[in-house]
Amino acid sequence: MASPTLLVLEQAGPSPSSPRLGRLTGRARVTTTDEAGLAAALPLADALLVWDFTSDAVRHAWPGGGPRPRWVHTASAGVDRLLCPELVASDTVVTNARGIFEEPIAEYVAGLVLAMAKDLPGTLELQRQRRWRHREGLRVAGSRAVVVGAGPIGRAVAHTLRALGVTVAVTGRTARPGIHGADQLDRLVTRADWVIGAAPLTDATRGMFDARLFGLMQPSARFVNVGRGRLVVERDLIAAVSKRWIAGAALDVFEREPLDADSPLWDVPGLIVSPHMSGDTVGWRDRLGEQFVELYELWAAGKPLSNVVDKKRGYVPMHD
Amino acid sequence: MASPTLLVLEQAGPSPSSPRLGRLTGRARVTTTDEAGLAAALPLADALLVWDFTSDAVRHAWPGGGPRPRWVHTASAGVDRLLCPELVASDTVVTNARGIFEEPIAEYVAGLVLAMAKDLPGTLELQRQRRWRHREGLRVAGSRAVVVGAGPIGRAVAHTLRALGVTVAVTGRTARPGIHGADQLDRLVTRADWVIGAAPLTDATRGMFDARLFGLMQPSARFVNVGRGRLVVERDLIAAVSKRWIAGAALDVFEREPLDADSPLWDVPGLIVSPHMSGDTVGWRDRLGEQFVELYELWAAGKPLSNVVDKKRGYVPMHD
Repeated sequence: MASPTLLVLEQAGPSPSSPRLGRLTGRARVTTTDEAGLAAALPLADALLVWDFTSDAVRHAWPGGGPRPRWVHTASAGVDRLLCPELVASDTVVTNARGIFEEPIAEYVAGLVLAMAKDLPGTLELQRQRRWRHREGLRVAGSRAVVVGAGPIGRAVAHTLRALGVTVAVTGRTARPGIHGADQLDRLVTRADWVIGAAPLTDATRGMFDARLFGLMQPSARFVNVGRGRLVVERDLIAAVSKRWIAGAALDVFEREPLDADSPLWDVPGLIVSPHMSGDTVGWRDRLGEQFVELYELWAAGKPLSNVVDKKRGYVPMHD
Repeated sequence: MASPTLLVLEQAGPSPSSPRLGRLTGRARVTTTDEAGLAAALPLADALLVWDFTSDAVRHAWPGGGPRPRWVHTASAGVDRLLCPELVASDTVVTNARGIFEEPIAEYVAGLVLAMAKDLPGTLELQRQRRWRHREGLRVAGSRAVVVGAGPIGRAVAHTLRALGVTVAVTGRTARPGIHGADQLDRLVTRADWVIGAAPLTDATRGMFDARLFGLMQPSARFVNVGRGRLVVERDLIAAVSKRWIAGAALDVFEREPLDADSPLWDVPGLIVSPHMSGDTVGWRDRLGEQFVELYELWAAGKPLSNVVDKKRGYVPMHD
């Protein structure tokens, strides 16, 4: 029996998939493509690995003619760049990288919360000026956070903040034990010290952090987004931070990435900008490769896959 | 019976003791002095509150002639600025502000550890330059820390780092259950990712963080000092960070405070300098005042005081 054809979408760069897929030698015919070659290669592929998870190419190439891979795996938590109506309607199974990014992101958020509570950005700026200026920090223990997003990332963030003594409410699409429904968000943000965006990008979440929601927050509140950039109306966030509707914010994700050098976001006082790195810790690409190989082995053996995305919802449902 | 005379050492400034001592009205004759007046006022005082805990004046004035207060309380954790041989040899009881600073300092250290693991200083510098440059962070969970200092501050730091999944060893003067003796420090630092200075300043700890100890640390290790500045040989730390013997450091305390504007410490790449603020969170001076009033009530009633310093050792012993 011929080995399945595995198509890998990747761009030329320092982190190719090939060294991480060595265990597939002899068990898959691996071909790689860049964005330009994707449409032509798709009909020949049994499975597609989206190693270049920053690409929108799948969404654009998928609706074309010809057969389609039976399985698509993306080396990312979010699947919003991938899904188009034709892929959603198809029988193709989509899986994601659930399990790799949650705990690193939770640590990153905890670091931002503590850094903002202790005004580390102010300390570093004063250090640059060689100025000794004592300030009072905030206690993190006893403060209140709302984590928007009840998937594994939101839950990991909640767990880590709770370990620091923060009282955390988590909101999701619908209410479940331990999770507040989206209809509770307005009420919860009005008394939160920290509002954390950790939701998938779907029709229900796109642009949810807007002037209205920032307007409900306390002037002492701070906002952190590690979900997807398009959860936030960036223009509204700039206004909210600039006008001191809220005390500060940190964005790791943006409407357009990489962020343009002339974006106004770079120099809003009180806003921390980082380059979509919250989940990426040393060895992460190796872990993404190992995870894909394990899924491939299940798939090739005809066994059920884990990390299967509910394509209509746009994320992997939690089973509790 | 006449009320006791309470002398308060404080400097003119925005945070006087008087609004915090209202509950003592009618129960103490409260007089305040600055450093210059301390020597003349000491013989008249039954108790001394060192509200200006940055002052060395007690140590200098105490050896003079005349009666001395029977009780000295300092609104700080460290008592090194206070103690002189004559005070140590006297019957005067010394108490400190144990209980106020531990948890804020633990949060501050956790914030520094996370910020260094995720290279937040690098992110803020790149933001200033409007440069999008992805980097990989380090995981904090699973890393190893040595906390030098087994008092309440060291223990609080250990507790908070453990909550983040760090494997923590605590070292103290002598080995006890859960605490390593000072003789284990060399061995422990050789494999630590984080070395935290949280010890009192005593003859045994002065200058302990020197070229020899930095030389034992891993090139990937980072050092944080929230204890006392003189635990560290600053010249040696500058060399260790500059020559990349260690990966980075953060100092909140210094040999001389405030740090001189021309100190070389301000601009060592990889070194974070903050103005002795790790324990100071909003409301801290109110809490210091409340704590003193509670101790005063015990003292005036002839009851045993808590937070009593072992003057020979130079800190409040732990009772476990």
